[in-house]
Amino acid sequence: MTKLLKSWVESANSPDTPFPLNNLPYGVFSVDEDEPRCGVAIGDMILDVAYLEEEGVIALDDEPALDLPFWNEVMELGPKKWAELRARLTDLLKEGGDHVLSSDADMRAQALVPMADTTLHLPFIVSEYTDFYAGKNHAMNVGTMFRGPENALPPNWLHIPIGYNGRASSVVVSGTDVRRPWGQLKGPNDDAPRFEPCKRFDIELEMGAIVGTPSEGPITVQEADDAIFGYVLLNDWSARDIQAWEYQPLGPFQAKATATTISPWIVTKAALEPFRTSTPDREKPLLPYLQEPGPMLYDIDLEVSLAPEGKSETTITRTNYSVMYYSAAQQLAHHTTSGCPMNAGDLLGSGTISGPEKHERGALLELSWGGKEPIALETGEERSFIEDGDTLTLKGAAKGDGYQIGFGDCVGTLLPAHKDPYKR
Amino acid sequence: MTKLLKSWVESANSPDTPFPLNNLPYGVFSVDEDEPRCGVAIGDMILDVAYLEEEGVIALDDEPALDLPFWNEVMELGPKKWAELRARLTDLLKEGGDHVLSSDADMRAQALVPMADTTLHLPFIVSEYTDFYAGKNHAMNVGTMFRGPENALPPNWLHIPIGYNGRASSVVVSGTDVRRPWGQLKGPNDDAPRFEPCKRFDIELEMGAIVGTPSEGPITVQEADDAIFGYVLLNDWSARDIQAWEYQPLGPFQAKATATTISPWIVTKAALEPFRTSTPDREKPLLPYLQEPGPMLYDIDLEVSLAPEGKSETTITRTNYSVMYYSAAQQLAHHTTSGCPMNAGDLLGSGTISGPEKHERGALLELSWGGKEPIALETGEERSFIEDGDTLTLKGAAKGDGYQIGFGDCVGTLLPAHKDPYKR
Repeated sequence: MTKLLKSWVESANSPDTPFPLNNLPYGVFSVDEDEPRCGVAIGDMILDVAYLEEEGVIALDDEPALDLPFWNEVMELGPKKWAELRARLTDLLKEGGDHVLSSDADMRAQALVPMADTTLHLPFIVSEYTDFYAGKNHAMNVGTMFRGPENALPPNWLHIPIGYNGRASSVVVSGTDVRRPWGQLKGPNDDAPRFEPCKRFDIELEMGAIVGTPSEGPITVQEADDAIFGYVLLNDWSARDIQAWEYQPLGPFQAKATATTISPWIVTKAALEPFRTSTPDREKPLLPYLQEPGPMLYDIDLEVSLAPEGKSETTITRTNYSVMYYSAAQQLAHHTTSGCPMNAGDLLGSGTISGPEKHERGALLELSWGGKEPIALETGEERSFIEDGDTLTLKGAAKGDGYQIGFGDCVGTLLPAHKDPYKR
Repeated sequence: MTKLLKSWVESANSPDTPFPLNNLPYGVFSVDEDEPRCGVAIGDMILDVAYLEEEGVIALDDEPALDLPFWNEVMELGPKKWAELRARLTDLLKEGGDHVLSSDADMRAQALVPMADTTLHLPFIVSEYTDFYAGKNHAMNVGTMFRGPENALPPNWLHIPIGYNGRASSVVVSGTDVRRPWGQLKGPNDDAPRFEPCKRFDIELEMGAIVGTPSEGPITVQEADDAIFGYVLLNDWSARDIQAWEYQPLGPFQAKATATTISPWIVTKAALEPFRTSTPDREKPLLPYLQEPGPMLYDIDLEVSLAPEGKSETTITRTNYSVMYYSAAQQLAHHTTSGCPMNAGDLLGSGTISGPEKHERGALLELSWGGKEPIALETGEERSFIEDGDTLTLKGAAKGDGYQIGFGDCVGTLLPAHKDPYKR
C-alpha cells in the first residue's frame, strides 16, 4: 500500500483530510457569481485548473477542456490524457516538484481557492444513468420482503449483473434538498390505489461509476475497467410504497425518479488503484464474458448518518464497497453486450451496498425490516423511513497508510411534500 | 375534418403525398457533404428553413434556431413560437400566401431541395427515452405468454400507465441497419445460461411522443398535452429470449438496448389536431390526476411490412393508434408525478400497438404466438421472428378528406450477428 504523498499545500498532509495529494479528485466549483468551472481538491483548497489552463501551466488539448462546468471534455480525451493530467497535477502540487505554482505567490493566490468559499456543482453532465442491483445481502433482504424468502434471489441474479435504466435528469449534487414526492400507492389490503405523498421514503447507499471512454459494441471486462473514469458516492432516493405498487412487470419507475444525489468529487480510478480488491467467491461460475481478469472492486469504507431537523446525527450503517457481488467493470461489460452505445458521462449505480450484518445495511427498508423494527437514533427518536427535515449523509473513504482517499460527503435533506403538487 | 390545404408546391397537393401543406413535419437533412440542418417536408421536397432563417424570411429568435442538426432549440422556445413558425411556413407555402418565396426563382431554387437528393438524420437530440406499455391487447398477449392467462394483466395496469426507462443512446433514425445482438439467454429447461446471438429478435410497433416543454414537478394531463411537441413512428427492437431471462425483477434492460428506430419526420401536434380521439372506455375509474380533459389520442392508421433480403414485402399487421388505453399526455403526466424533471427532446414510446384481432398485432411475438404459429409471407416463406437480412418497415398516416398526414417510413434491416462480438 502506498504512503501519503507530501504536498506543499499543508492541509493536504493531514491524515484526516479526504483530499491528500494521493487523491486529486475532480469537481466543478464557483466563487460568488463566477461561472462554474473545473477544479481539483487538495487539502482544504480547490486548485483552479481552468485558470491554470488559461495561463498555460496545464496543457491538455488544443481546445480549453477545463474552463467548463463539467469534466466530460476531459473524459472524451481518453485514458492517456487522464494519466498526463494526473501526472502534471501531482508534479505541480508535490513537495519538490515543478515550482511554477509553489514559487509564484500571485499565481498561487489566484489558483488555490479555499474550498469553504466555494459552491460545488454537479461535476459532469450525466449522459444516462443506470442503476444496478449487485449487492447480494440487499437483494436477499429486499427480495424476502417483496416476494418471500423462497423467491428472494431471482434465478438470474448469480449469472447477470441485474440493472435497469434510471433517470439522468433526476441526478443532483450533494447539498441539493429533496422534496418528498407524491405518487400512486396501494397497500396489499386496499381496494383501490390512492394518489398521495409517499410514506416510505428511503435512501440507497451506493457507489457510482462514471464511464469516460465511449463504446459502440460489446467490450470485455478489462476494456470496461479501462473505460471507467472515476467513482462517486451515490444515494438513490427511493419511494418504497410507490415502488411496491408500480414495479411489476417492467421495474422501478417513478419510485426512483425524484432524485439521485452524488458526492461532488469524482475520485479517479488512479487514486483508488492501491485499494483494488476482488469480488467475493462465485457461488456459480460466471459466463466467460463476465469473468474478472483481476481485482476490480475497491476497499472503500462507507457509512450513512441521519440527523433529524436541528438535531445531531446518528450513524445508522457502516459497510464496505468490497461486499458487492459484481464490480462496476462487470456491470459495464454486461451493459454493452446488446451493442448498447455507451457515452462519456454515463453513470452506473452499483446497487445498494449492504453488509451481512444488520448494522451494515444500506437502506432503511432493510435496517427497519420494512418498518417492522424501527431503528433507534442517539436523539432518542426512532426511524422506520425518512421523516420530513431529516438530513441523510453518505460518507466514504479508502484508508491507506497514514492517509485516506475521501469522496466528500453526499448530503440531502428531505423537504415536506407540497400540499398540492399541482399548485407549487 | 379539415380539407387539403393547397400549396403552390404541386407535389404537395396529391392525395397520396404524406406531406401536404396540412402536415409540415420537421426533420434534419443534408445534401452531399453539407452540414445537417433543419428542414420541413412539403410534397416531395424539403424546405431548407435554415437557409430561410439566414435570409431573414423566417425569424424565430435572436439566435439562429434552425441552422442546427436538431429541433431541440425550437422545442425550447415554447408553444407560442411553435404556432408562429407553423403559421409562417403555411403562409410561405400556401397558394396565394406570402409570395416572397414563390415569386423569387433564385430563392425558391435554393430553399426547395428534392427530398430524393437528401440524407435524413435523427431529427432531434434524444434527451432521455421512456418506453410505455399502454396497449391492452399487447399486455394481455405478452402477459399470457410470459406469466400465463390468469396473471396476464398485472393488477396495477388499469391504474398506472406502466413504463420503464429505455436507453436514449440506442435511438437511431429510419434507414439505420440494426445488428442482431448477442446476449445472455436461458431457456426454462436449460441448466445454465449461455452467451450467444439472440434467436428471437422482434419489432414493437409504437408511436413516439416528443416532449417539447421542460417541467420540474408534477404537471396535469392538460399541461402534458400542451408540452408535447410532436410524434414519430417508433420501432422498439426487442430481443425476446434475452428479455425473458433478464427482466425479473427490475424490468427489460439489454433486450431493449440494441436499437430503437424512429421515423425521420416529427409530425407536430398541430398537424394531428383534426384526428384527435378519446381513449377507450375505462374498465376501472382512473385517479383524477390521470383523467383526460379531452381527446388526446389520435386516429392514425399503422402498418408493418416485412421483406426478406432481396424479396418483396408482406404487410404483416395493420392497426390504429387509437386502440391504446393511455394517451401520451397521460403517460407524461404520470411520468412527472415523482417530481421527475422532463426536458425538451425526451422521447416517450407508446408501448406496442396491437388491435384486438390477430392480424392487428404489433409484434412478431404476438403474431406468431411466441413462435408456435409462424406467419406466412407472400413469398411463400414463414416467420416466427426476424431473420437476418429482413427489412422491417413501419408506416403510419392519419387519413383526412382528400389528404393524409404521413410520418415517413420507419425502416430497419437486420444484419447478422458478429461471429465474435469482441472482434468486430
